[in-house]
Amino acid sequence: MASRFVIEIAYDVPRLEEKLLAKAASMNNLSVKLTNVRQTPLTLERPSVDVTLVRCVSMYGAVHAAALREAVDIKAINSSMAILYSGDKILTVSRLKAAGLLIPRVAVGLDAEAAEKALEKVGLPAVDKPPIGSWGRLVALLKDLDDFRLVLEHREMIPSSHMKTHVIQEYIDLPSRDIRTLVIGDEVVGAIYRYRPSDDWRTNVALGGQPVSAYLNEELREISLKAARSIGGEIVSVDVFETETGSYLVNEVNGVPEFKGLMQATGVDIPGKIVEYAYKTCRK
Amino acid sequence: MASRFVIEIAYDVPRLEEKLLAKAASMNNLSVKLTNVRQTPLTLERPSVDVTLVRCVSMYGAVHAAALREAVDIKAINSSMAILYSGDKILTVSRLKAAGLLIPRVAVGLDAEAAEKALEKVGLPAVDKPPIGSWGRLVALLKDLDDFRLVLEHREMIPSSHMKTHVIQEYIDLPSRDIRTLVIGDEVVGAIYRYRPSDDWRTNVALGGQPVSAYLNEELREISLKAARSIGGEIVSVDVFETETGSYLVNEVNGVPEFKGLMQATGVDIPGKIVEYAYKTCRK
Amino acid sequence: MASRFVIEIAYDVPRLEEKLLAKAASMNNLSVKLTNVRQTPLTLERPSVDVTLVRCVSMYGAVHAAALREAVDIKAINSSMAILYSGDKILTVSRLKAAGLLIPRVAVGLDAEAAEKALEKVGLPAVDKPPIGSWGRLVALLKDLDDFRLVLEHREMIPSSHMKTHVIQEYIDLPSRDIRTLVIGDEVVGAIYRYRPSDDWRTNVALGGQPVSAYLNEELREISLKAARSIGGEIVSVDVFETETGSYLVNEVNGVPEFKGLMQATGVDIPGKIVEYAYKTCRK
Amino acid sequence: MASRFVIEIAYDVPRLEEKLLAKAASMNNLSVKLTNVRQTPLTLERPSVDVTLVRCVSMYGAVHAAALREAVDIKAINSSMAILYSGDKILTVSRLKAAGLLIPRVAVGLDAEAAEKALEKVGLPAVDKPPIGSWGRLVALLKDLDDFRLVLEHREMIPSSHMKTHVIQEYIDLPSRDIRTLVIGDEVVGAIYRYRPSDDWRTNVALGGQPVSAYLNEELREISLKAARSIGGEIVSVDVFETETGSYLVNEVNGVPEFKGLMQATGVDIPGKIVEYAYKTCRK
Repeated sequence: MASRFVIEIAYDVPRLEEKLLAKAASMNNLSVKLTNVRQTPLTLERPSVDVTLVRCVSMYGAVHAAALREAVDIKAINSSMAILYSGDKILTVSRLKAAGLLIPRVAVGLDAEAAEKALEKVGLPAVDKPPIGSWGRLVALLKDLDDFRLVLEHREMIPSSHMKTHVIQEYIDLPSRDIRTLVIGDEVVGAIYRYRPSDDWRTNVALGGQPVSAYLNEELREISLKAARSIGGEIVSVDVFETETGSYLVNEVNGVPEFKGLMQATGVDIPGKIVEYAYKTCRK
Repeated sequence: MASRFVIEIAYDVPRLEEKLLAKAASMNNLSVKLTNVRQTPLTLERPSVDVTLVRCVSMYGAVHAAALREAVDIKAINSSMAILYSGDKILTVSRLKAAGLLIPRVAVGLDAEAAEKALEKVGLPAVDKPPIGSWGRLVALLKDLDDFRLVLEHREMIPSSHMKTHVIQEYIDLPSRDIRTLVIGDEVVGAIYRYRPSDDWRTNVALGGQPVSAYLNEELREISLKAARSIGGEIVSVDVFETETGSYLVNEVNGVPEFKGLMQATGVDIPGKIVEYAYKTCRK
Repeated sequence: MASRFVIEIAYDVPRLEEKLLAKAASMNNLSVKLTNVRQTPLTLERPSVDVTLVRCVSMYGAVHAAALREAVDIKAINSSMAILYSGDKILTVSRLKAAGLLIPRVAVGLDAEAAEKALEKVGLPAVDKPPIGSWGRLVALLKDLDDFRLVLEHREMIPSSHMKTHVIQEYIDLPSRDIRTLVIGDEVVGAIYRYRPSDDWRTNVALGGQPVSAYLNEELREISLKAARSIGGEIVSVDVFETETGSYLVNEVNGVPEFKGLMQATGVDIPGKIVEYAYKTCRK
Repeated sequence: MASRFVIEIAYDVPRLEEKLLAKAASMNNLSVKLTNVRQTPLTLERPSVDVTLVRCVSMYGAVHAAALREAVDIKAINSSMAILYSGDKILTVSRLKAAGLLIPRVAVGLDAEAAEKALEKVGLPAVDKPPIGSWGRLVALLKDLDDFRLVLEHREMIPSSHMKTHVIQEYIDLPSRDIRTLVIGDEVVGAIYRYRPSDDWRTNVALGGQPVSAYLNEELREISLKAARSIGGEIVSVDVFETETGSYLVNEVNGVPEFKGLMQATGVDIPGKIVEYAYKTCRK
């Protein structure tokens, strides 16, 4: 790789992932520009970078950072739209559905009354999530109507329109795990099972879910690429449920993927592959 | 027009505009399906409608309603993306800039520290707005640093990431008015001046701004169409500032435009034109 | 009663209760001054009233209105302190306990970590309530740890220190009802059972709980007066649980009591008694 | 001092003050029990302590911790009521006024409409504060109506009834400083001026205000004791404004006083005096 090429890493909360990306860029003789978007104002003057890896934890922070780079003709990976499509669960299911992928049954209530009827359509037990949110936060398992009322009343108190919106989804009684794959460009670089911790019904690693390497069969590979493309993503993780009948349902797509767990479980050099992809896509 | 064609009007708070649209559709022998998204769950089953006019006051409500119709292959006007691009002020300026349009100088702070530096870049006086919001709400004129601190401290208390984001814009010392044009498809159907009320520095009609018919010159027409296209909008209003040197700056674009004021000031049959556009675009 | 005496009714949301109080005052030849505290600024100038009945739905609104009258030497019924002691559930249990009354077992967590340990002390199932709140709102029945996590996560998102505070109380498996008594001065004027509706575990009338007249035995009478005095209340309702062993536990005290249900179930002229009490206590 | 006596220090965020208090207690051969109320559930079982110094930064945390100790017959310094009276600015002015102390002119609006009229009563410029809050946070200087609208609109978005409440106070054009005194029991142990920093109109030390030792004349001494007693406080700081005519106005009272600045400026051993006071008051 040539040495003048500058990769910008736009971040807010520096995690292990961002450090590994910076290291990988250096090892490939690329220049790195670290931009903490909490400290750096973003303007419409073009910075001297060739590509921006968007790594903000804040979903809208990521979208806004990507968009302001695109405004001055710098490629953002992922694009602002891909981050939005994957970051907003209603946009995600809309795109997955339009692309013909199988997903859990879902009904959306944009306010309390509509949410009640949405729950009737989906039936109990169900999962109720706000359209925005990470690490399983505020994702509620509704076992009965008391649970639903609890969620409704609390969400009403949070002054964000997203919190009044209920994405109500069929509860898939997982075999105590789900699958996460990671897509980089045209390649699916790995897959893991995430096992549910003993004290939570959710599988999120942030909540204690255990990552274990998984076999990446052809069907999972195809579904992952199709899901990534449906939201316009280049580097994304895809969450998949297995059903009792052996089919796969795409649950969510993440446009600013954490990859520590998958890297450790599979041994794949994710940061190296991401940096390589960014370079190949953007060099002139 | 044929009689089987069904226009869905998706709304949350019924305003005069929605009633006029329903009436215009009936007068053109089109069927109307009114969908109150606060009461009706939105699913991924295709409803029997040919096009959806998205008229929700809630920006994300509008985006989500549009996306869930697009998911089942129904055209939404505007599209979910156009509503998002115009509804999020950072996405708007990014698209306007990428399209080469002139806009007020702007710097974005994604958190308090970045916002302080953004204000230094733009200078005082400035306008500070959150990326999301309608009718001028929470749009602050910063005359001095006390004003800025006031805004910073209050926004920190509002639990929405949008409220921690500061879009800081050059204050254009308007000739006590701005210009609003309305685009429907390839046509700019009218323009008004909105005069500032005596007791507020903002021109929003909701705050008492007075609408007066304005001459629609060729430059305004071109700018309006270019602005509409930059965000992928079909039916949008465009807010334009006049500068001392006689040039135009595009300030904002609205993807779910209110048009009562413009209709009254110009005498143009806006609802008729919108319904006609929706029909022509979607009939088979 | 003399005719110059002026009763002020301070309110925010006018309910049936406030209208009945105004009517009762007129029928007793008292002057009535209605003060909507949402529209009327409260100052430290003494208004021409002899007593203020504080009837604001907003708990702090009630406290503040009472305090500002007391500041200029007007008696407020209830006093600002009584409203606070009864309106804040932690202050209530502190006062009830100090007065030697039996109450359900309780532990308070002032933050998430402390709340977890508080729940361990009380055990499952338990009731988790914020210190402030009416009509059973945000009062959660914790059947298992999933319920608790749901409540914790949601409360964290609400930007009020009260919402981070968890009053965790032993769940009393009611005989599908609780008891509410009403105290006016030295008299307990009535008691009702509130029966749990079929679709909610709470008995609040606002949630559909059915009020039925109850026999007021001597023990209930004593407990009610003692509870009222413990918080310094003159006109309060007292919520009581019956236990399996036949003893009574005081659950809550309300310093701005709604009395419509009790009035209808018992036939007692509550507004007349309140007005009479206010007059007798304050005439010179 | 005897050695079995146990002082509990109840805190949430440990500051220098709490460490100094613990040290002073040890040096006086008293036992210290540190209770982090964020980690420790508070129950109605009596802990083995003789007195509780309440040092929580969270105002309601302090009130609740104090009340739950009082419930089991342990003296809290300050008492729950004193902390509440001083922590809620409306209760404070009510008590100061009832005690005949001079205070800045004030009008309270419990909602937007009432706040507008309250501002008319007080006139511009004015200070607008929510009833609860520390370190000058959200205390706004209203120079004109634009400032007021800014505050109104932002406060409406914060989901706490306190934020809809506007305590509007005459703006006292200080000689760039205010006075803070510290009361311990019957003694006023010191006074400081707090000078306004160059870049903020507020004098709070947390905002950069500079503390300088001040002469404690007889009038200040009397006012301070009277203010402390009016809210039932034993250990409080009192904020005083000087007016052009040479009189003193009591602005606020703090029931969980920070004393680092005063200690450094005056050289008085505050922690020692507080510990001594607590011991003398509570030993049997």
